[in-house]
Amino acid sequence: MTEQEVVKVKVDLALIHFPVVNKNQEVIGSAVTNLDLHDIARAAKTYGVDSFYIVTPYKDQQELFQELLDHWLKGHGSEYNSNRGEALSLVHICDDLNQLFERVKEKWQERPTVLATCAKRKHSKIWSYPLVRQRISDGESFLILLGTAWGLAPEVIEAGDGILPPISGLGDYNHLSVRSAAAIVLDRLLGRKE
Amino acid sequence: MTEQEVVKVKVDLALIHFPVVNKNQEVIGSAVTNLDLHDIARAAKTYGVDSFYIVTPYKDQQELFQELLDHWLKGHGSEYNSNRGEALSLVHICDDLNQLFERVKEKWQERPTVLATCAKRKHSKIWSYPLVRQRISDGESFLILLGTAWGLAPEVIEAGDGILPPISGLGDYNHLSVRSAAAIVLDRLLGRKE
Repeated sequence: MTEQEVVKVKVDLALIHFPVVNKNQEVIGSAVTNLDLHDIARAAKTYGVDSFYIVTPYKDQQELFQELLDHWLKGHGSEYNSNRGEALSLVHICDDLNQLFERVKEKWQERPTVLATCAKRKHSKIWSYPLVRQRISDGESFLILLGTAWGLAPEVIEAGDGILPPISGLGDYNHLSVRSAAAIVLDRLLGRKE
Repeated sequence: MTEQEVVKVKVDLALIHFPVVNKNQEVIGSAVTNLDLHDIARAAKTYGVDSFYIVTPYKDQQELFQELLDHWLKGHGSEYNSNRGEALSLVHICDDLNQLFERVKEKWQERPTVLATCAKRKHSKIWSYPLVRQRISDGESFLILLGTAWGLAPEVIEAGDGILPPISGLGDYNHLSVRSAAAIVLDRLLGRKE
């Protein structure tokens, strides 16, 4: 995509708080991280993502997310820094994967291709970044799933149509934060190249 | 660079806390952000960066950074999660730009090319990402400067040899966190493409 082709893309992001795994690969639910919300919403807005879904079944966590959103969308934060509200206006809260899938399907009037992200190279059905970039550019709809804690639970990865390749540089260390991983995934799929 | 060419690259990152600008473009010093340290160190380690310098003249801030480092390098954190220590072992604290430039020059036995980062497209001397990627691959040394708060002060940008292009996607919104920007810059310069 070039600067001349500023078109709306059908890409959504979802940050999953349950089910994810802990460092021992046990399935858990994770808590709200304020900076996940801000950093990923700002990156989503920068790259033209349509919606950024926060998925958590815990009502207290949903309320906490909603308070954070209200501060920046309606409260003092909206006056102090309107850029934050502009990014956070992309955010929607969902109870679980089923509700997430229903909402995106209803929005696009089609089921998007669902791609999970994982730091380990242990899955089949890997879609390359250039392939997904091309398909987005062709107008296809995609939903990208990001995991908190130590990553998405196996059942989430299996619920998708495939996964994006793990992000890596030189060497074997690839313990990126989900905030960094989200930014890189979006840049690879939607960034202007220069 | 391919997986077969795992070579040491001469790339350093520096996160500047003074002089930077606030939202009114006034020159200020900024405070420690715990997650800047973690997220950028983890991305630096992932992409094979040699050192990640924290630049702040404030002694209380230097002590706070050192406490955070000690926790993960020597304290309870090192037992809880050794990956964090592995990343944070790249971190060094400097008083100011002069000390930073002296240290990297001493380390590489040459003055590296110093590139600033800026979210605005208002500077000359722009180096493209593919050009810098190629020069890194050719063995040249680079120091990349990142700004906290609302970005690097003009005098920092002018102290460098050039700037990297602002990161942007579709549209005009490009209010990324410095954590996201650092991850994307490293992926563009050092990421394995797949």
